[in-house]
Amino acid sequence: MRYELYYWPGIQGRGEFVRLALEEAGADYLDVARMPEKDGMGVPALMRFLQNPEAKRAPYAPPFLKAGDLVIAQTANILFFLGPRLSLVPEDEASRLWAHQLQLTVMDFIKEAHDTHHPIASSLYYEDQKPEALRCAHDFVTQRLPKYLGYFERLLARNGGQWLVGAALSYADLSMFQVMAGLDYAFPNALAKHRPAHPGLTSLQRRVAERPRLAAYLASPRRLAFSEKGIFRHYPELDAS
Amino acid sequence: MRYELYYWPGIQGRGEFVRLALEEAGADYLDVARMPEKDGMGVPALMRFLQNPEAKRAPYAPPFLKAGDLVIAQTANILFFLGPRLSLVPEDEASRLWAHQLQLTVMDFIKEAHDTHHPIASSLYYEDQKPEALRCAHDFVTQRLPKYLGYFERLLARNGGQWLVGAALSYADLSMFQVMAGLDYAFPNALAKHRPAHPGLTSLQRRVAERPRLAAYLASPRRLAFSEKGIFRHYPELDAS
Repeated sequence: MRYELYYWPGIQGRGEFVRLALEEAGADYLDVARMPEKDGMGVPALMRFLQNPEAKRAPYAPPFLKAGDLVIAQTANILFFLGPRLSLVPEDEASRLWAHQLQLTVMDFIKEAHDTHHPIASSLYYEDQKPEALRCAHDFVTQRLPKYLGYFERLLARNGGQWLVGAALSYADLSMFQVMAGLDYAFPNALAKHRPAHPGLTSLQRRVAERPRLAAYLASPRRLAFSEKGIFRHYPELDAS
Repeated sequence: MRYELYYWPGIQGRGEFVRLALEEAGADYLDVARMPEKDGMGVPALMRFLQNPEAKRAPYAPPFLKAGDLVIAQTANILFFLGPRLSLVPEDEASRLWAHQLQLTVMDFIKEAHDTHHPIASSLYYEDQKPEALRCAHDFVTQRLPKYLGYFERLLARNGGQWLVGAALSYADLSMFQVMAGLDYAFPNALAKHRPAHPGLTSLQRRVAERPRLAAYLASPRRLAFSEKGIFRHYPELDAS
């Protein structure tokens, strides 16, 4: 099956969680909105799905995945669908629900990381909500960040310290890698401060990055850079001092 | 199967989406944290799950559902699990993913509704983030609210106007009812303004409320009142004028 991923070009964003799963599995996929418009791809191809007045099951927003006749949106939902097909989750229902539960908690976490720079409205510029962002980010780096990291660190330890779900790598581990990489970029001081208390997550981040397919992907032009247009943005004034 | 729901007592919150599904289905369930501590229930029973140092698959936060040996957290994940068991979703995989996708979009919507009164930090009082809340709520009632409602209205119309998923009521319809009821409570002016453009959702809200089991539930003491402790809070200054 050739999958088609649709996500805004130019940023990692939520689409990156899907890319990491597809890349780790060596799946056959097209990153449609990053392909040439002259070939019928690009952002216009993405917009056709969002704006198709006859689409009975239209996405609210990217990312979405086309898999045969199915068009699936919501990052965690896409990974729930892909997990067993890419052998990135154990097959039993309990483990699939558990991996999904972790992914949903990751999505909550990154929404809070995003909202540090956009606490008032996504439609406004960061510069137009900077005082609010400073307050929000202070709470995030001092309260929310250690609370979330502590939760994932404990679960990782209780599962043996290697992987979050079962006895092998799952998409939850890939997502945790992405969160740690994003925090490294956006909040280097805060993460440096919290790392000593989270050795398991630090080790997980390294082990995921060293997997052959992931390492090749991360070194390739397919891996977009973090930037001040994505979820994780490095505004030094929002980081811990 | 007797289900056990664990959620903070005293508020509808995210737990209410699970309650509506259990109630509509006439399921056998215990609302554990609202039961007497002297019987081993109440909030201490809930905290034991959150703080159990040996729980390999511990929830990050309520609500969570105990179903036999399974403990499932994240509202949308709980409904994904319960849907087929309570006959509140069609059985085919595509429809289950679609209902889940809608539920996840509902969760995004209510998170934004919540953040209007807590844009800076959930740990602070509303009174300590009121200027920020006024800005955030203005964006919500003028931009986000109509965008989300328009999306669900269109999908409802494209599916025939009666139900959001397939040919019968699903948990997505129950959740949409809850969103409309919450918006009615928190933003009566804004919702009154937007209602004429959303006749399908208005009709859906009424039809759900009139279902015999739901009507009985809504009239019972099991249905908690909306209040200024929940997701949907009525602060008149945050509503449209």
